[in-house]
Amino acid sequence: MKYTRSSFLLSIATAGALLACEAPAPTRANSADTSIAAVDPMPSWNAGATKQAIIDFVQRTTTEGGTDFVPVPERIAVFDNDGTLWSEAPMPPQLAFVLHEIKRRAPNEPALAKDPMVKAALAGDLATLAAGKHHDGLMHLLALTHAGITVPDYQANVREWMKGFQQPKGGAGLAGATYQPVLELLTYLRANGYKTFIVSGGGIDFMRVFAEELYGIPPEQVVGSSAAVDFELVNGVPTLTKTMEDIFVDDKDGKPAGIHRHIGRRPVFCAGNSDGDQAMLEYTTLNNPRPSFGLIVHHTDSVRETAYDAKPPVSGTLISALTAAPKHGWLVVDMVKDWNDVFVSAK
Amino acid sequence: MKYTRSSFLLSIATAGALLACEAPAPTRANSADTSIAAVDPMPSWNAGATKQAIIDFVQRTTTEGGTDFVPVPERIAVFDNDGTLWSEAPMPPQLAFVLHEIKRRAPNEPALAKDPMVKAALAGDLATLAAGKHHDGLMHLLALTHAGITVPDYQANVREWMKGFQQPKGGAGLAGATYQPVLELLTYLRANGYKTFIVSGGGIDFMRVFAEELYGIPPEQVVGSSAAVDFELVNGVPTLTKTMEDIFVDDKDGKPAGIHRHIGRRPVFCAGNSDGDQAMLEYTTLNNPRPSFGLIVHHTDSVRETAYDAKPPVSGTLISALTAAPKHGWLVVDMVKDWNDVFVSAK
Repeated sequence: MKYTRSSFLLSIATAGALLACEAPAPTRANSADTSIAAVDPMPSWNAGATKQAIIDFVQRTTTEGGTDFVPVPERIAVFDNDGTLWSEAPMPPQLAFVLHEIKRRAPNEPALAKDPMVKAALAGDLATLAAGKHHDGLMHLLALTHAGITVPDYQANVREWMKGFQQPKGGAGLAGATYQPVLELLTYLRANGYKTFIVSGGGIDFMRVFAEELYGIPPEQVVGSSAAVDFELVNGVPTLTKTMEDIFVDDKDGKPAGIHRHIGRRPVFCAGNSDGDQAMLEYTTLNNPRPSFGLIVHHTDSVRETAYDAKPPVSGTLISALTAAPKHGWLVVDMVKDWNDVFVSAK
Repeated sequence: MKYTRSSFLLSIATAGALLACEAPAPTRANSADTSIAAVDPMPSWNAGATKQAIIDFVQRTTTEGGTDFVPVPERIAVFDNDGTLWSEAPMPPQLAFVLHEIKRRAPNEPALAKDPMVKAALAGDLATLAAGKHHDGLMHLLALTHAGITVPDYQANVREWMKGFQQPKGGAGLAGATYQPVLELLTYLRANGYKTFIVSGGGIDFMRVFAEELYGIPPEQVVGSSAAVDFELVNGVPTLTKTMEDIFVDDKDGKPAGIHRHIGRRPVFCAGNSDGDQAMLEYTTLNNPRPSFGLIVHHTDSVRETAYDAKPPVSGTLISALTAAPKHGWLVVDMVKDWNDVFVSAK
C-alpha cells in the first residue's frame, strides 16, 4: 500500500503550523428543478461563474434524455471534511478532541500525566509530537485516545467534547465551524438525487458521531481513516473495542482506495480543499465515461476565516492540486469572492 | 484481529464436501402498510408462524407512536449472501468463478497451467487446495484470480463468467440460484423504510458486480471480504489495481467488525444461515436497545435444493447457531415447511 500512517499524521502535524454563526444546519427550502425554482437553492453563494457552473452541472446530469444524464444510482458525490465541510483552522477539530481528552484525563490518571508525549501535548509542543519519521508522538496520543476503548465509550467522549467546542471565528459547537455554502451544496445535490459521502483523512468513528446531525450524512456514508475493531461478548453483551491494528489512512492515494472500499463505484462529483484530495479529484474526473465535476475550496479569506492554504512550504496544503486545477477543469472556489456567508449562522 | 484468512478459506473448503426457476428478481407490488395490504408482500412464504413473525416485527417497528417504533435511519437490515440470498450448494458461486477462471486461462498461459495448485483445481482435487493451516492452495488460486488485475478487468471477468452460470436445481444465470422468498423479504423490508445490506464472507468486489441487478442492493451497501487496492495514474488514466494486501475476512467475528467498518451502527434485522453468521446475529439481537430480529435460513430441502447444513462434523455449517437460536429467539426458517417456492422463477 502506498498510503501510510505518516500522511494522516502529517496532516495533523501541518495543522500545528496554522493560525486561525451557530446551531444545526437549517434545511432551506429548495426545488429539485432549479430551472423553475422560485427559491435559490444556494443563497450563500454569490451569483457568478462559480455558482453557475455548479448549477449547470447538476441540471445537465439530471435532465432525462440529455446526453449528460447520469442515472440516479451513479450520482455519487464525495466531500472531504477538514477544510471542505468545516474549518480546519486553527487546527482540525479532531486534533482539538485529542488535546481535550489528554487534558481531561491527565489529572485523574497519574501514569498518563507522566507520559512525555502527554506532557508535550499539554505544553502545546506540537513539534515534539510531530517529530520522527512516523510522528510517533502523535501516533501515541491517537492510541491513547482512540484505541483500547469500546465504541460506545469513545462516542460518548466525542459527544462530551462537542458540547464545548468553539471555532474562534465561527459560532459555538461543531455547527459553528461548518461552512454554510457547502451545506447548501450538499442539500442541493441530495435534492437532485445525488447520494452524498464524506471521504476524509479524519477518523471514521470520530466523524460518524456527528455527520448525520451536522451534514445530513448517515454513518454508512462516511469514509475515513480507520483501524480494526475487535468483537466479543462480554457477559453476554456484544462489545466492539477499538484497536490500532490494520490502520487504513484515507488520505492522498488512500482516498480513491477508500472510495472503492466503501462505495465501490466512481463518483461523478468531488469536493476537496488540499493536495490530500488531488487523487480523489483525479479518480472522479479523469477519463470518467460519465460527466464529472471537481471542486476545490480555496481558503483565501483572512477576515472571516484564515487564508492559509497556498503558502509553501510551511503551511502550504494546496499547491499541487491548485496547479493542476486549470488543466483538469476543476472549479476553484474563492471564499472571498464566491461566498457571501462562511459559517452556519444562528437561526 | 481474531478473524483470519483461514475462516474465509475454510468456508470455501467446506463447500467441496457438499453435494448438491430463471430471470432477474421481479418487483412484486406491495404495500408499505401490510395491515391494509390487498397484495401479499411475500407470496412465496407459506402462511404460518414464521411468516407472521416477520410481518409482525416489521409492523411493530414501523408503527409511529408505538413503543417498538424504530426511526427510519436506524432501520438497518443485514443479509448474509451464500446460503441466505442465494444457494451455496453444490459450491459457493465464487468458488465456481475461481475454477472457471483457472480453466479458461490455463490453455493460453503455460506457466499457469504448470502450477501444481492449478493442476489440482483442474483435476477437481479440492482436498489438496484446502490442505495446510492457511489453505495455501486456495489462497494461491484467489491471488491468481482476484489480484494483480485492475478493478474493471476483474469486473469484466466476473460478468463473462456470470453468463454461463447454472445452478443445478435452479434456473440459468445467477438469478436462477437466488432465493425468491428472500428477495421478497428484501423488497418488503425496503418498502417499509429498511436499508438492506449484504454482509458476507464472499469477496466484496465479486458481489458488487451483480448485487444491484440481482438483489436491488447497490455497491455501497455490500460488505464483504476485501483486500487493498492500489491507486495510480497510468498514462493519465486513474487505475485501481487489486492486491492481496491488508486482507479483511468478513466472516464469524469479522462480520460485526465489517458491519462497524462499513455501516457504523447496529442493525436491527439480521438474516444468516450458518455458524459464520452467529456473531452478527448476536451483535444485532443481544442487548440491543432497539427491537431486533434474527433469522436463520435452515437448509432442510433435499428435493428443491440440498439438505446439508446440520450434519456434523464434515459438512455441518449450522451447528452452534442452531443450538443458540431458541435461547436468543432467532427465527429458524425451514425451507421445506416455510417456502412454497425456492428459486427465482422465470417470468
